Amino acid sequence: MSFSPLIRQMIDALRGLPGVGPKTAQRMALHLLERDRAAAAHLSSALDKAIAGVGYCRRCRTLSETELCAICTDPRRDPSLLCILQSPADVWAVEQAGGFNGRYFVLKGHLSPIDGMGPDEIGIPALLDCLDGSEVMEVILATNPTVEGEATAHYIASMLRPRGIKVSRIAHGVPLGGELEYIDGGTLAHALAGRTQIL
Amino acid sequence: MSFSPLIRQMIDALRGLPGVGPKTAQRMALHLLERDRAAAAHLSSALDKAIAGVGYCRRCRTLSETELCAICTDPRRDPSLLCILQSPADVWAVEQAGGFNGRYFVLKGHLSPIDGMGPDEIGIPALLDCLDGSEVMEVILATNPTVEGEATAHYIASMLRPRGIKVSRIAHGVPLGGELEYIDGGTLAHALAGRTQIL
Ligand SMILES: [Zn+2]
Ligand SMILES: [Zn+2]
Repeated sequence: MSFSPLIRQMIDALRGLPGVGPKTAQRMALHLLERDRAAAAHLSSALDKAIAGVGYCRRCRTLSETELCAICTDPRRDPSLLCILQSPADVWAVEQAGGFNGRYFVLKGHLSPIDGMGPDEIGIPALLDCLDGSEVMEVILATNPTVEGEATAHYIASMLRPRGIKVSRIAHGVPLGGELEYIDGGTLAHALAGRTQIL
Repeated sequence: MSFSPLIRQMIDALRGLPGVGPKTAQRMALHLLERDRAAAAHLSSALDKAIAGVGYCRRCRTLSETELCAICTDPRRDPSLLCILQSPADVWAVEQAGGFNGRYFVLKGHLSPIDGMGPDEIGIPALLDCLDGSEVMEVILATNPTVEGEATAHYIASMLRPRGIKVSRIAHGVPLGGELEYIDGGTLAHALAGRTQIL
């Protein structure tokens, strides 16, 4: 059948959400139009505000709507401990796991020369700037336990070697090949606590 | 952890979508903010346009952005055959099943006295108005094969008895207790073809 243009466009736009196929998008569109137009208006407004207002923290590079994020400006966080991650999703996952009280630095993914993602592209110069003159005594490398994540961790470790900073890698309690974002909080907290020093 | 306000509001708003729990909403928010802000802007705009532009067809009461919907104004549809359904989702389901070439009338759900949904509330007077002076020769009652859907079908049949219109009920090929919206097209097409006349 052919939907009317506005309904068709709404269904297509809902398919832009990850994990939403055509049948689910239809069901969502119908639910919003028939039963909950207020939810649709609320979603539209929240999306607009987030797009306009959410950028990146100048220091740690996680998603933030202020120049410095709430974690970077929290005086209760230990400024001597820096956890390096591949994405803002990983910050959320570690925060939700609990038990970590340092700060973060978020890379733009992992090294992947074949995709043109070298040290500059993933933010290594910004990381080194962030460490210059900082109080950081220990860096925890919490990139994903994948081949690329390991390679990225090793590269960063090699860059930090001359600086005499303590460098550790999260324990391999996280399953190999897995992605941090999808790992349960307990495993993640355990992996952080059981980190091994590599420099 | 506490998300920043705009991200928290975005996640909450995404949970207004049916079937979206907290983890899925987080994943959607992150995907949109990190990888696809264009999709977020597109969704916001499509939602606004649909909310403002989509109403109900004056004749058949399905969702429509024009006063009369595309089906009601299609000269190739048989005006002598009217299929009565409980919701616009059911129109979509029957249209996607294919094989039906008549027109529709969409009730506001089914009779449910306990919820204050009597004949007036579900649109029986509008149905009778729609039949007055129309070319309809046969009405197919395609309410859900649930207790309430059956009761609604029987009530409508009793109202149509004095009019001498042929009235049929979709065949019980659709599983009892099921909802039309979720039934596969083949079963639905079969149930329509195998309808039994009840008046
Ligand atoms: Zn920050
Ligand atoms: Zn219509």
